[in-house]
Amino acid sequence: MNSQKPVKIIASGKYLPARVSSEELEEKHNLPGGWSEAHSGVISRHHVSFESIGFMGARAIEAALKKANLGLGDIDMLISAGASFDYPLPNQSSVIKSELKDSVLHNVPTLDVDSTCLSFVSAFEIASKMLDGEQYKRIVIVSSEIASKGLNTQNPETLTLFGDGAAAFILGYDESSLSAFIKAYFKTWSEGFDHTIIRGGGAVYYFRDYPYDENLHSFEMDGMKLLKLAAKKLPEFMDYICKDLSVTLADVNIIIPHQASKAGLYLFRKMFGLSTDKVKENIATYGNCIAASIPLLLHDLIEQKEIKRGDLCMLVGTSAGFSIGLLLFRY
Amino acid sequence: MNSQKPVKIIASGKYLPARVSSEELEEKHNLPGGWSEAHSGVISRHHVSFESIGFMGARAIEAALKKANLGLGDIDMLISAGASFDYPLPNQSSVIKSELKDSVLHNVPTLDVDSTCLSFVSAFEIASKMLDGEQYKRIVIVSSEIASKGLNTQNPETLTLFGDGAAAFILGYDESSLSAFIKAYFKTWSEGFDHTIIRGGGAVYYFRDYPYDENLHSFEMDGMKLLKLAAKKLPEFMDYICKDLSVTLADVNIIIPHQASKAGLYLFRKMFGLSTDKVKENIATYGNCIAASIPLLLHDLIEQKEIKRGDLCMLVGTSAGFSIGLLLFRY
Repeated sequence: MNSQKPVKIIASGKYLPARVSSEELEEKHNLPGGWSEAHSGVISRHHVSFESIGFMGARAIEAALKKANLGLGDIDMLISAGASFDYPLPNQSSVIKSELKDSVLHNVPTLDVDSTCLSFVSAFEIASKMLDGEQYKRIVIVSSEIASKGLNTQNPETLTLFGDGAAAFILGYDESSLSAFIKAYFKTWSEGFDHTIIRGGGAVYYFRDYPYDENLHSFEMDGMKLLKLAAKKLPEFMDYICKDLSVTLADVNIIIPHQASKAGLYLFRKMFGLSTDKVKENIATYGNCIAASIPLLLHDLIEQKEIKRGDLCMLVGTSAGFSIGLLLFRY
Repeated sequence: MNSQKPVKIIASGKYLPARVSSEELEEKHNLPGGWSEAHSGVISRHHVSFESIGFMGARAIEAALKKANLGLGDIDMLISAGASFDYPLPNQSSVIKSELKDSVLHNVPTLDVDSTCLSFVSAFEIASKMLDGEQYKRIVIVSSEIASKGLNTQNPETLTLFGDGAAAFILGYDESSLSAFIKAYFKTWSEGFDHTIIRGGGAVYYFRDYPYDENLHSFEMDGMKLLKLAAKKLPEFMDYICKDLSVTLADVNIIIPHQASKAGLYLFRKMFGLSTDKVKENIATYGNCIAASIPLLLHDLIEQKEIKRGDLCMLVGTSAGFSIGLLLFRY
């Protein structure tokens, strides 16, 4: 069965909080000057001050709607695709919807999808399978993430790596163009499930019983184990997919990878002999924005006309779990 | 476009922690004897002691796999459909997968879907749209919820209403039977977004800045506002759906509603003139188990042979957000 579907990116939008330079962070946390760029490759990123995840997500959606000259009433579903959240309940999509200016005028259904850093890629697949030109004509996917609050000040690696931000995409069912969702693949290797984790704050280390402790409640990443696992699993994953799709990486016009880390991006390019022309990056000026990294990069590339209609595009990345995911679409 | 799809429930399983009677709860929290049954209609529910969400979810999946005589390697995707979580990161589905006994032998992709109490219904729709008999032959959906940890001891209404538990369903693409996913509908009314909320523990009231406080970190529900909003929106929602599907409620063999509250179930039956024969309940012995309520009830009805192959079944409910959702399938 051909899973190709006439799905088109109609428009996108983004929201970024204030820029924070590496010098500012290094000074604040007593790190040597230049540490961030040398170790994580991040020169600057954006961190929230007054903003919530809901606020950023709503502004990104409004920007995408404005660009498309559409209103909330033209949307048949709102998917929030991300790992961070404003409140443990309700779901983040309902919070984002409530912050849209026309929220009470339109009863658009809301849904959260979470495959951590690959949430946007999962939501793109789900939206593509739901879009049918009747019940679901247009679906908006928003990835809004605040990473900056869960960082351990004693861990300079993660402290300088992560950024906040939001991007929203409107996908539509459109048989009139060549644009298409082609196929998506995901695999989860459970041996890596705790290589990236925030232990405290859920049912296991419940906050009533475990008061705030920076080590317990911050993001933990075993970067070396992650790189090793990715290096071991990526070749078989890509091999399998290229065979199944009868395409090679050479056929792909542009690759938009998750901005996990500078080392991860380097490893990916080197492993498959790919250039920086094809494998795009924004880690130097955005950092790792969890699930918002891929859609922020995709949005900027479209705005800069580096992606043109008809281009074969690949979204790819690793995520906590440990998973690898990939999606092919024709823009 | 007809959204009907040859999707069949292959098997299901459940896990329940220890039973807690209302007498025990009433004694523990200095409530008058009989308060729980009189006010919330709950005689007993199950609450975790040693169990995590991951543990319960994994046991429910193993029970379903055993029943179907399948292994984890026969599953093409694992969806966790729920609102509670063991860790803020990674996603709950990856945690559940890691607790399965064969987890490292099979790289089944994991995904979280959250529409709060309607998560199982959303995941049923998503799985139905993804199942294609090729890339996705069988998808397991698991709803595992711990509600008991987030309850305010000063609020007897919610304290006695909620229960914990897990249920898992294996859905398969099967053209050989009459079983089918027919259609699902969801709507979200943002005016009710904070009628059910846990305020503390996310990015807005981040636990570093807001230490544990029972009021801030517990589940809050404005039951009266919720009932009023549901009473206002349910008739138009059901009208719209019945017209679109050209079916009446009389055509439906069995209705499996979310077990939000005794009053909510009563209101629903009364509003549409339905009997307890058709609209099923388990609130008296399970309480409200968040997203696990619907699949636990569905599982038990199948086990008790109250649902037979060919029956037209409806899943329906309200959820935090505020949403109403409904799904029709032929068992």
